[in-house]
Amino acid sequence: MKSRFRHVALIGKYHASPAGPTGSSRAVLEDIAHFLHAQGCEVALEQETAASTGLSGHAALDVAAIGAQCDLGLVVGGDGTMLGIGRRLAGHGVPLIGINQGRLGFITDIPLENYQATLTPMLRGEYEEDRRTLMHARVMRDGHCVFDALAMNDVVVNRGATSGMVELRVEVDGHFVANQRADGLIIASPTGSTAYALSAGGPLLHPSLPGWVLVPIAPHTLSNRPIVLADSAEIAIELVAGRDASANFDMQSLASLLHGDRIIVRRSQYTVRFLHPKGWTYFDTLRKKLHWNEGVA
Amino acid sequence: MKSRFRHVALIGKYHASPAGPTGSSRAVLEDIAHFLHAQGCEVALEQETAASTGLSGHAALDVAAIGAQCDLGLVVGGDGTMLGIGRRLAGHGVPLIGINQGRLGFITDIPLENYQATLTPMLRGEYEEDRRTLMHARVMRDGHCVFDALAMNDVVVNRGATSGMVELRVEVDGHFVANQRADGLIIASPTGSTAYALSAGGPLLHPSLPGWVLVPIAPHTLSNRPIVLADSAEIAIELVAGRDASANFDMQSLASLLHGDRIIVRRSQYTVRFLHPKGWTYFDTLRKKLHWNEGVA
Amino acid sequence: MKSRFRHVALIGKYHASPAGPTGSSRAVLEDIAHFLHAQGCEVALEQETAASTGLSGHAALDVAAIGAQCDLGLVVGGDGTMLGIGRRLAGHGVPLIGINQGRLGFITDIPLENYQATLTPMLRGEYEEDRRTLMHARVMRDGHCVFDALAMNDVVVNRGATSGMVELRVEVDGHFVANQRADGLIIASPTGSTAYALSAGGPLLHPSLPGWVLVPIAPHTLSNRPIVLADSAEIAIELVAGRDASANFDMQSLASLLHGDRIIVRRSQYTVRFLHPKGWTYFDTLRKKLHWNEGVA
Amino acid sequence: MKSRFRHVALIGKYHASPAGPTGSSRAVLEDIAHFLHAQGCEVALEQETAASTGLSGHAALDVAAIGAQCDLGLVVGGDGTMLGIGRRLAGHGVPLIGINQGRLGFITDIPLENYQATLTPMLRGEYEEDRRTLMHARVMRDGHCVFDALAMNDVVVNRGATSGMVELRVEVDGHFVANQRADGLIIASPTGSTAYALSAGGPLLHPSLPGWVLVPIAPHTLSNRPIVLADSAEIAIELVAGRDASANFDMQSLASLLHGDRIIVRRSQYTVRFLHPKGWTYFDTLRKKLHWNEGVA
Repeated sequence: MKSRFRHVALIGKYHASPAGPTGSSRAVLEDIAHFLHAQGCEVALEQETAASTGLSGHAALDVAAIGAQCDLGLVVGGDGTMLGIGRRLAGHGVPLIGINQGRLGFITDIPLENYQATLTPMLRGEYEEDRRTLMHARVMRDGHCVFDALAMNDVVVNRGATSGMVELRVEVDGHFVANQRADGLIIASPTGSTAYALSAGGPLLHPSLPGWVLVPIAPHTLSNRPIVLADSAEIAIELVAGRDASANFDMQSLASLLHGDRIIVRRSQYTVRFLHPKGWTYFDTLRKKLHWNEGVA
Repeated sequence: MKSRFRHVALIGKYHASPAGPTGSSRAVLEDIAHFLHAQGCEVALEQETAASTGLSGHAALDVAAIGAQCDLGLVVGGDGTMLGIGRRLAGHGVPLIGINQGRLGFITDIPLENYQATLTPMLRGEYEEDRRTLMHARVMRDGHCVFDALAMNDVVVNRGATSGMVELRVEVDGHFVANQRADGLIIASPTGSTAYALSAGGPLLHPSLPGWVLVPIAPHTLSNRPIVLADSAEIAIELVAGRDASANFDMQSLASLLHGDRIIVRRSQYTVRFLHPKGWTYFDTLRKKLHWNEGVA
Repeated sequence: MKSRFRHVALIGKYHASPAGPTGSSRAVLEDIAHFLHAQGCEVALEQETAASTGLSGHAALDVAAIGAQCDLGLVVGGDGTMLGIGRRLAGHGVPLIGINQGRLGFITDIPLENYQATLTPMLRGEYEEDRRTLMHARVMRDGHCVFDALAMNDVVVNRGATSGMVELRVEVDGHFVANQRADGLIIASPTGSTAYALSAGGPLLHPSLPGWVLVPIAPHTLSNRPIVLADSAEIAIELVAGRDASANFDMQSLASLLHGDRIIVRRSQYTVRFLHPKGWTYFDTLRKKLHWNEGVA
Repeated sequence: MKSRFRHVALIGKYHASPAGPTGSSRAVLEDIAHFLHAQGCEVALEQETAASTGLSGHAALDVAAIGAQCDLGLVVGGDGTMLGIGRRLAGHGVPLIGINQGRLGFITDIPLENYQATLTPMLRGEYEEDRRTLMHARVMRDGHCVFDALAMNDVVVNRGATSGMVELRVEVDGHFVANQRADGLIIASPTGSTAYALSAGGPLLHPSLPGWVLVPIAPHTLSNRPIVLADSAEIAIELVAGRDASANFDMQSLASLLHGDRIIVRRSQYTVRFLHPKGWTYFDTLRKKLHWNEGVA
């Protein structure tokens, strides 16, 4: 039986490490391309992946073309790579599978070693689908939008490195929540709840929860606890005080902030579709990554 | 203009303090009954309230009769009183207003002092409605249900006082989550997220969030962090090890547990309706109760 | 070269598991006794160890006799065994070495597998000594001491399993600290800071720190944070409110409490001496047990 | 009876707010100077205080001269002012009293309103003395000290504002503790334990505790908990990875860091002496500042 997915885009690490050789990665991608071909797929290479590895013999497509022409994206890399491509493909509805060469990630959960045994049934349609919400964030200044970004993990407002706390005015659906003084504030999706938000003391959010969590970073007021909101809410964060503050989006894009700037966060109309092997559950990933059932830590 | 609510049930503290006199409470209820009457309402007294205060001249109704005949419940007491009556009236859809004689609560948010100014417009229909989800919990033993309860705040599984940790097997929708060793585990609704779950390190959940939070109490494994689930999930907690464990529901009813017992928690088909003064938001309550914007704590 | 320790007491698990066979443990102790003999030591068996294993051919000594006659105690078991014997030998100054058959503990840090290689230089005097402070706790009722205990890990005041919070009045050196409402309160030594206190949110205390930490368990007031005191302080905890409360000491002995009871904790005049292999540091133990440098958890 | 303190230095806010008028502060200092004079004290003004307020009629002394000539420093301002002058006077042993015009601080605990009633007995010798330890920190680069500072509160190593985590290698007394990936790391004294360290999740340390606490800021590894060390320990923090990192000292001085830089922290030979009204205890301050015994927060 053949693959249900006819056109598969192969996506490697976006930014090849300047230090390391790319040989192994090229060989890996070549091997996977072979395998996909044998499964009856047409294989395209994401443009930058093609350029950085020098692999030829396959169409090299930019993200828009992948979105238009492919019915599956196969990402070889870590969670960061997956976040980057997921955000950019979100508008197209192309599902993604993540293969991880090193340490398994929260969202790249297929080990490279025996990827063939895992992928074979998935390509035939035996998989679990896992949809993730995205945040759409805008930075408003004097009534104009000066920055616009999607985020899969988190929107983070941050103090400057050498200055004291920021003061942030938080509003939800136009209602005043609080003025918070802290190192910063994280708005995280369920996907992002296992990343920076977890380090800052936030709870885990199951991917099926339609919610965001607001996690203050080192808040001055001890009762400023993380708060989980329905993701239908519009969240506004205004920079009231603090020097050199900035907002970043998945730690991959960045906006400098002035006093009075407002970061407005809403649910994006798009979602990202991750495919996992049949039988996968999110709890399996948590258990492995958080070393549950392995003692003290 | 007359009250939109024609039949109002007045509900006082269920259990009058054995020590204290009940005189002041009786006078308070009498005063409120007068006021309601002047607003054009027929006033009934919840049966136990009538008995404990000795107030006469109003119909004394049990909870079922209140559910059948009244279109508003006016609770005079604290959050505990509100939880108790809310749970019992949940099946009837009667909305509730909470008046607090002492320290304002999270859900009894109208101070007694000037209740008339606050209630007058509310009775005319100017209010915010705030629906709260309920949990339906069952304790299963050898395939039979040996205990059944509703909970508005939380379902808590607890070790015995003089024994060590319990070990609990947690499943969600039939999927294994983890075996947790801890003092216990709290499953809290948004309403309960400001109660015991908060003390145990859980996040705040906005009442509009369709979710529950699982908060381990003093977990052995440090990475056993609170996890927020969609409230469509079925949660099962099995007692694997530990002596004298028990499950309690809103800290108001209790079941002793044996090894192998499973506590199954689902969203109840019912919700509780709280009414608040026009303009109220949940964040106002949080800000007051948690002393936000007042310094360190 | 011969052992510097001439009389070594061999101490096994106090309470043999009722279910499991004790054969392997007996064989293990026999093997270790042989080894010690070959190193030039006279070997005694702790009395209950002798009784439960049925090992003969060695003097069977009670704890007092071990204290009087032996210059080393070799404990084969887990941290709980070590705590129990450490407390009882504290008045005698006999140093202890801990061998662990299963999972390494915080204080039983020598794996059974190659114990000979590890012990040989230690018996010759090549070791690190690590002194641990002990707490002396008394329960006072109407001016009389009704319970008296030593604790190496912690003194824990606890609510009853089926009742709400306790209220505790905390004083330090006669000064009022606070009235705390919580599930309970832990007073932990550096040794106990990696046990229950850690689960309840307390910090780690290095064994060389002359301090105790007070860790509230699920405190009602969010700013009731753990507080570290000099161990020269006298700590008094008075039970103000709460049913079925109890105090326990290393989770190994227990006192029921009445309202007005005061638990008085002071540093004991005794310390316990643990010996570790040359080069050992406490941080090595933390790193292993807490899985530092191994990712998220 | 006359004051035991003959030469008193009056110290106002170092940096007058550029926006606000300084009139009220001048009047306040004039009033206090009068009062001190009436108590039999000779009054000097700290040099910058004299310059910024334009007060005349008193000797204007720099910090060295205050250290040499005065036997008491009276600080009118907040905790930040007290930290600044405390550090600079530390080598001289001059005790300090703190008067606070606004919100009471942790170390400036005498309200301006009725300062006369409070100071009168203190000047006669009725006070509690409270000694605070200081940290001496050096930044070492290629074997040379490139930065040297005292800190009363904390030494903080920080990531850059727009970069990811730093990786820090922590050593204590030459022993490897861990490589920590985090936003940063705080080393706090007991005095600093109520400041930034508390926001980042650290415990409270009583001023009489001879200890420091290491508090990681948003650590990647969840088991990287705060750890309290004896203050006789030498702590070394090496910057292993991370861009734009810096170290700051009481948030009042700052050093940029390069990879391989080591921050070495030891107890200073100096201590700072704070004087409080008779009967004062540290717990009174905690209770007030942390709103203990006032409900949830």
